[in-house]
Parts: sequence; structure tokens; C-alpha cells
Amino acid sequence: MIYLDYQATTPLAPEALAAMLPWLESQHANPHSAHAPGRAAKAAVEVARDQVAALLPSGGRVTFTSGATEALNWAIKGTRGGIVTIATEHAAVLDTVEALAREGRQVTILPVGSDGLVDLDRAREAIMPGTGLVAAMLVNNEIGVIQPIAELARLAHGAGAQFLCDAVQGYGRLAIPGGCDMIAISAHKIHGPKGIGALWLRDGVTPEPLLHGGGQEVGGRSGTLSPALCAGFGAAAKLARERFEEDHAHVDRLFARALDRMAGWTLNGSRARRYRGNLNLCLPGLDVARLMSELRDIAFSAGSACASGSGRPSHVLRAIGLGDAEARASIRLGFGRYTSEEELMTALDRIDDAARAQRSAA
Amino acid sequence: MIYLDYQATTPLAPEALAAMLPWLESQHANPHSAHAPGRAAKAAVEVARDQVAALLPSGGRVTFTSGATEALNWAIKGTRGGIVTIATEHAAVLDTVEALAREGRQVTILPVGSDGLVDLDRAREAIMPGTGLVAAMLVNNEIGVIQPIAELARLAHGAGAQFLCDAVQGYGRLAIPGGCDMIAISAHKIHGPKGIGALWLRDGVTPEPLLHGGGQEVGGRSGTLSPALCAGFGAAAKLARERFEEDHAHVDRLFARALDRMAGWTLNGSRARRYRGNLNLCLPGLDVARLMSELRDIAFSAGSACASGSGRPSHVLRAIGLGDAEARASIRLGFGRYTSEEELMTALDRIDDAARAQRSAA
Repeated sequence: MIYLDYQATTPLAPEALAAMLPWLESQHANPHSAHAPGRAAKAAVEVARDQVAALLPSGGRVTFTSGATEALNWAIKGTRGGIVTIATEHAAVLDTVEALAREGRQVTILPVGSDGLVDLDRAREAIMPGTGLVAAMLVNNEIGVIQPIAELARLAHGAGAQFLCDAVQGYGRLAIPGGCDMIAISAHKIHGPKGIGALWLRDGVTPEPLLHGGGQEVGGRSGTLSPALCAGFGAAAKLARERFEEDHAHVDRLFARALDRMAGWTLNGSRARRYRGNLNLCLPGLDVARLMSELRDIAFSAGSACASGSGRPSHVLRAIGLGDAEARASIRLGFGRYTSEEELMTALDRIDDAARAQRSAA
Repeated sequence: MIYLDYQATTPLAPEALAAMLPWLESQHANPHSAHAPGRAAKAAVEVARDQVAALLPSGGRVTFTSGATEALNWAIKGTRGGIVTIATEHAAVLDTVEALAREGRQVTILPVGSDGLVDLDRAREAIMPGTGLVAAMLVNNEIGVIQPIAELARLAHGAGAQFLCDAVQGYGRLAIPGGCDMIAISAHKIHGPKGIGALWLRDGVTPEPLLHGGGQEVGGRSGTLSPALCAGFGAAAKLARERFEEDHAHVDRLFARALDRMAGWTLNGSRARRYRGNLNLCLPGLDVARLMSELRDIAFSAGSACASGSGRPSHVLRAIGLGDAEARASIRLGFGRYTSEEELMTALDRIDDAARAQRSAA
């Protein structure tokens, strides 16, 4: 199996698993208990918190959550005032603001250009006094493009609004731009475990709690933390920091070779402003369902399907102007630290060959 | 270390860890991905769902959540109308209804008697047309008493309200009474992993989502599920089902011996209507902080501290009529499957000796 779906999730780093095992095998206390094993568990949580924070701005606190979905729901539902966001955000943002719009909250969805980047002129018009929150993704999960986060944060602050950055696909891979008030991240996108994420809160920023009950965590979040998941997240963050340059250079090399190999395909989204571990490619006329069933030992995603697996057509490809036929003829390839150049090139050869065989048979 | 804090959390079963490891060591796909490894992960989630459901009523669906706190917040915030609950509920219920009361939702908190059991006459008066939700715990997390769930559910239905059961401390240990519309449970209380729980929804019961974004899970809950956590929860539920009689008999035996040994202490809460893996004991004049610091190799909880570790005084001991001094002189001992009779008796000898030494020194 060649795994090319790094935007959906990434393999757990062996170092992250090693950090988790003591908390699964023999140390079982609740980190919120006052006795000695409870305090030891709490200490492990705090070590992990510092490791996760080391890749985030100073002047804030990391609150562990069950994942980025909870973090985004919390940040959005916990603030007041109008919301401005972008048409290509993750469903965890768009579905949440849609629910709030039904309850009467003012919501503005900014369009993107054919390169996937937000129109800053439209953003300037939309972000105005009365806006309470501006929410934007650092790296898009479907097409990998990088939004102008620092500029959007400046516009938000100019209007007296808070700025929320969905950094799920960028954390640990890119430097986090300045100006964020809240940052949502997820462990399993950086080779940590599934089931944990975090909301970073700038000092003084306190959204209303989403999960009530005890308020164990920083910022008033309730629920028993898992020391195993925290330790795994912390170790993954530590590793991402240590390997930052190396991982980046590896991904750049893979991207250049992949783009060269797939020269006959069209790259969806900006080529220049993108995280290069993402390749969303279109080949007109391609039957993606057939391609996936012909290549069962290569794990990749249909570009036309929303990353949530809901089967809904991709709102991102629609937003950059692709028609239904082009969206249905698109695939998403995601790769990273544990993808070897050899397996990537093998997979690309087989994908390209199978796609072209479809066309010559048609 | 002798671990006597089973109400805070329980040791992970070796069988649960074994079920988790493949999903941590080598199988990493997102269960919401359409490719082969994604579908294999999804299949593991569904096996776990059936294992968890086998200890719950028929005619409903299990939705995985990040834990019982999320499940309770979801169930309560996702329903409409007045809320009736009990003074001894967990903070995840009481803090949530308090937040809703601040927003104008009608909330009634029923008192309990000195045995910790709800006053059914007061419940009959309070649960009336206009009540949308009645929420009650099966087994109390601090004093172990068992509320009359079936009767409360009948009263709720008579008034046209839904009934939510917080079964965190009862699931896998007691049969779930009939009549529940929603049931909140947690894996780590039944020797499963921390970081996962579930909300069981009777067919046709659909609270508004708490976590928006994709709606991957049954009932519209969003967020990437962890196959490892699901598999661990499922294996723990399977084991609890297989060992139901054996675990029960073991706990009964431990309880009888412990009660005999601690005859000079007062048992907080009903003796007859309780889960017997909980012993909340008071010894007038006891300095619990000193006792805990003298017995650092025995993990138990101060009865006076809320289970959340927030340091707030126990609302449960207050609700059963204990004064501050009695609450401060109470400890909570929790034991179960992996507690040997010998280690329990050793711990009790040392606790009783240290407590009595305090008194003779005073």
C-alpha cells in the first residue's frame, strides 16, 4: 500500500507512539486527580503542552481539545458579533457559521479567485465595525493554497474583530503568521494521534466554553484529558520542530519531481502560494471512481469529494471555478515525511498510466 | 502503588490495549476516507460500535464522542424546553444547565435525601408539561448511589419530555434501566482508553449537533474518529460484557470485606442502593490532606473535592446534608476488576491506622 492521503491524516510517528505507550501500558491515573499518579499524569500533560506551544506564537496558551473540529466550533460559537470567513474553509468552519446564521448571526462568506486565494479587496469591504470574528485557513486541506493570514488578521483587528486561524494543515509545516488571536490545530495531521487537537488562545482571549463541566483545561474547557494522547501530540510537535527544515526540503523535492512527472495534468489552486505536500490535479475526462478501484493499493482521495467523506461535492473546487466535470476529474495526492521518492514516483507512474489508458479506451 | 480511585478512571484493560495497537503501530488511515485502508479503519469503528451497543438497550444508535463531557453537553444543549435535573449530578451536567439558565432556559434542580436518592415526590411536582429534558445519573460518581432511573424516565415521558441518563459510572457494571432516550457513557471508566465516550440515541431522538463540520458520525456529530480509541472502547465493552457476573461478584466481595474492616467509619450515601465498587467514608475529625500526604503510595480521593479536580468543595456531600467539617473528613475509595483483596485490605489497614493515629495525636 502506497499512502498518498496526508491531508486526510498522517502516519503516527514511532516517536509519538513511544511517548504514548507508558500512559497506555502501566500509568493510568486521571491527570485531574490530586494523588501522586494523578500529578505525574498532569506533569506529562504539561510537558506536552509546552512541546505543542513551541511551534506557536508566544503570548498565548495551548488548550487541548478532542481535535480541530472541537477547537473551531469552540472558537466560533464562543465569540460574538458578525463573522467573516472564506468560501474554501473546512466544513468545521462553514457548517458552524451556517448553523449560527440560522440563529440570526451575521455571516459573510468571501469568494476566492481561480488560484484559491481570498480577494483582499472584498475582505476589506466585508470586515467592518460590528464584525466580531474573522476566520481563515492557513493552508487549504483540499488544494493546499496558503491564505494571506497576516493581512486578514490586520483587517480583523482594524475593525475591532478577533482573528481565528485554522492552522490544521499548516501547523508544524509552516511558520505561523503573526496576528492570530486563536489558532486551531490537530495532532493527527503532524504524525500525532487521532483524538486530540488544541485551541491556542492569545493571552486575554477567552471564548465562552463549548464543553461545560469542571473546566479542567486552560480557557475553561471541560473533560478528562488523555495523558497518552497529549504525550503523543507533544512528541509529534517536538519532532516536527526538530525536523522542520529536513521535512520541508523533502516535501519540496517530492513536489518538484511529482509536478514534472504529471506535467500533462492541471494543478488546481495557486502554484506559487501553496504547501507543497499537496497536489490536487485534474485530467479532463478522467473517471476518478474507476481510477480508485483500479489502483486499490494506492491510497489517495477523489478531488471532487469533500474531505469529510460525506460524499458532498467539493465546495473548494467549485469556489475556484471548476465545473462539475472538472471537479469529478480531479484527484488529491498528499505526501510528506514518510513518503519515499521511489514510492511516490511508482504511484504517479501507475496513476498516470491508468488515467491515460482510460482515455485511449474511450 | 495501590490504586483505589476507580471512579476517577480505571486501568486500561490489556485486551483493550491489544485492540488499539494495530491502529497505532501500522494502520493509520482516516476512517472517513474512501480508499481501502480508510474503509478498513471504518470497519473497525463499526465493530467497536456494535461492541459498545451490546451493553445498551436495543432500538438506538451509538454515536462516538470525545468523552462523556461532550456527550452530556451535546444532549443537554441539543434539546429544547425546561430542564429538570438533580443536585448531585456531575459538573458536566450542572455547569451546562447553569450556563443555559443564564441564557434564560428554565432549570429545576431537585434535592436528594441524606441517602443521596432523589425525592420522587419533588420530581413529580417539577416534571411538568413544558419540561423538555430530565437528566439523571445512574450511579453517582462520588457516593455511588443508584438513582431510580426508570421512574424518572416514566415521569419525563408523562410530561412529554426526553430523558437523558448519565450512565458513566454504571455502564458495563449494571444493567441499563429502560426508558432512556439518551445515554452518556465513557470508555475510561470501564477499562477502555481516555479520550472517547459515546452518546446513545434512541431511534428518532436527534439533538441539534454540538460539533458541526462534516457530520461524519451517527446523529450529526463531526470530527475525525480515532480507530484506535474506538477499538479500545469496543474491546473494553466486550470484556465488560463477558466478565459482567465475575466482575460484579468480585466487587461485592471486596465491598463486604471493606465495610467490615472500616466499621468505625460512616458510609456516605445509601448503603442498599449503591454500586458497591464505591466507598465514600467519613471519620469525624480526620485531616484528609494530611492522610493523603502520609499515604503517597495509595491513590485515593478526598471525598470533599469535586471529582473534576477543580478544588471546589463537593456539591454532592453538601447535598446529602454533610457540613463542611464532615465533608472535609471524608475520603472516596474506588475499586474493581484489577483490585486484589489483599491490596485493598492492606490499603484499608494503613488508611485506618493513619487516621486513628491522627486522632490519638490530637
